[in-house]
Amino acid sequence: MFEEGLRTAAAAIRQHMKQVMDGLPAVPVAEAMRYASAGGKRLRGYLVLESARMHGVDEAQAIWPATGIEAVHAYSLVHDDLPSMDDDDLRRGQPTVHRRWDEPTAVLAGDALQTLGFELVANPQCHPDPAVRAELALTLARAAGARGMVLGQALDMAAEATDTPLGLSEITALQAGKTGALIRWSAEAGARMGGGDVAPLTLYAEKLGLAFQIADDILDVEGDPDAVGKAVGKDAGRGKATFVSLLGLDGAKKRATLLVDEACTALDPYGEEGENLRQAARFVISRRN
Amino acid sequence: MFEEGLRTAAAAIRQHMKQVMDGLPAVPVAEAMRYASAGGKRLRGYLVLESARMHGVDEAQAIWPATGIEAVHAYSLVHDDLPSMDDDDLRRGQPTVHRRWDEPTAVLAGDALQTLGFELVANPQCHPDPAVRAELALTLARAAGARGMVLGQALDMAAEATDTPLGLSEITALQAGKTGALIRWSAEAGARMGGGDVAPLTLYAEKLGLAFQIADDILDVEGDPDAVGKAVGKDAGRGKATFVSLLGLDGAKKRATLLVDEACTALDPYGEEGENLRQAARFVISRRN
Repeated sequence: MFEEGLRTAAAAIRQHMKQVMDGLPAVPVAEAMRYASAGGKRLRGYLVLESARMHGVDEAQAIWPATGIEAVHAYSLVHDDLPSMDDDDLRRGQPTVHRRWDEPTAVLAGDALQTLGFELVANPQCHPDPAVRAELALTLARAAGARGMVLGQALDMAAEATDTPLGLSEITALQAGKTGALIRWSAEAGARMGGGDVAPLTLYAEKLGLAFQIADDILDVEGDPDAVGKAVGKDAGRGKATFVSLLGLDGAKKRATLLVDEACTALDPYGEEGENLRQAARFVISRRN
Repeated sequence: MFEEGLRTAAAAIRQHMKQVMDGLPAVPVAEAMRYASAGGKRLRGYLVLESARMHGVDEAQAIWPATGIEAVHAYSLVHDDLPSMDDDDLRRGQPTVHRRWDEPTAVLAGDALQTLGFELVANPQCHPDPAVRAELALTLARAAGARGMVLGQALDMAAEATDTPLGLSEITALQAGKTGALIRWSAEAGARMGGGDVAPLTLYAEKLGLAFQIADDILDVEGDPDAVGKAVGKDAGRGKATFVSLLGLDGAKKRATLLVDEACTALDPYGEEGENLRQAARFVISRRN
């Protein structure tokens, strides 16, 4: 049931992304933007659409920030994969942008995908109240920037440059930026659009984001590269501290399960209406890619 | 008189940039953001402050988008300078970010400077009316993205990859994106904030942006590298079409002068109030860096 909802959301986001990209000029950078934003699970976009639905927001509006956050997420992956960063050849089973085109195209496509994210949330069709659009843009900037996602990246880089592996609290802080910030923004977006209380969704998303990262670390150890669509075993190969290296495989799985339970409980105020998001949380630790 | 105004504006922007950066976490990426955004002529920020003044907008508000556009401009320079892009070692007479730190730091600092630009224009202190903040964010995204600045970059890259040098109309289109789009946004910002007609400022900025790029091409031929603060003669060395290669040095100078006259005339509706922006236009073609 949840996976069907996720597929439906992914299709709607893919369609909207295609529409907004259709008007772009015929240059390789625009092709690379389309390529980099065409796939993925669309979990972040799903969180936007579902939290919007829970707050009575029309999907024709919510599709704008849902597509916007996926554009920002796509930007972060394109830049992450760059030779000077993680130097990855594959993403979602396809050549990364700098492999398919070249490095300058990947830098610029990532740059423009970030910009596009802001263009989409600030679009008048996203919400009739400009205060909501301005708030979505402001909070997205805070989530993506040097106190959010980029901070997580920066802490990750700093960790790789030292010989002392990170401890649990440090790796938790790193994750809260690197993957947590956009996940949190996504879950909160619906409450922002519907004028509801963001607090239950904030708590939900904090637990979910951490569970998501732990599941990623587990996949890096246990995952099948064909299913995951990218190289696995990279972290252990680099002697990098992960939730698995710190908690052990069983400990990491238990921790992820506990976090998912907490995420589900955080949705109590929504009662039955929160069921899809509860299933999303369970999905995050059961996924194979 | 104008140059004093520019210096005053630059000092105010530097101060505000410092303040917004003060709260950033102590990581190299944040240091690199400060470094990359600490200098420059601040012409774009000046255009914001001056167009805002002409529309009766308080400088305490206008400083937000003025600093925001300088953050976006700084991001574009950091990424432009990357080894895979222009591979420049010097910017404003100082080592470029990837030379002073490393390439991953430059990628991330540029990314976060772009994000910061949106964070600043969407900040509630920028304007009490959220419709203005949402409009500033939307128009900034359009100016910076794949139909604006990044398109200009993409066209520039495409031109370097072919043996056929660009013609005048192509190079004009390239410039309209690469440098024109942010200059136009800057000049229009004050009218947007003050609820005035943007049309005269749009026309002014289009002429100014083109004159600015022609002046840049002239500096690449005639400039003193110490004054310019970066390598010169690069375009001719690469056999790249520029306004100078297409119009000749004298022709380029005449064209720039004509454009500045047209920019000044575009400000007729403002009468005496437009005098500072007229001087700014004259400055753009007389500058030595």
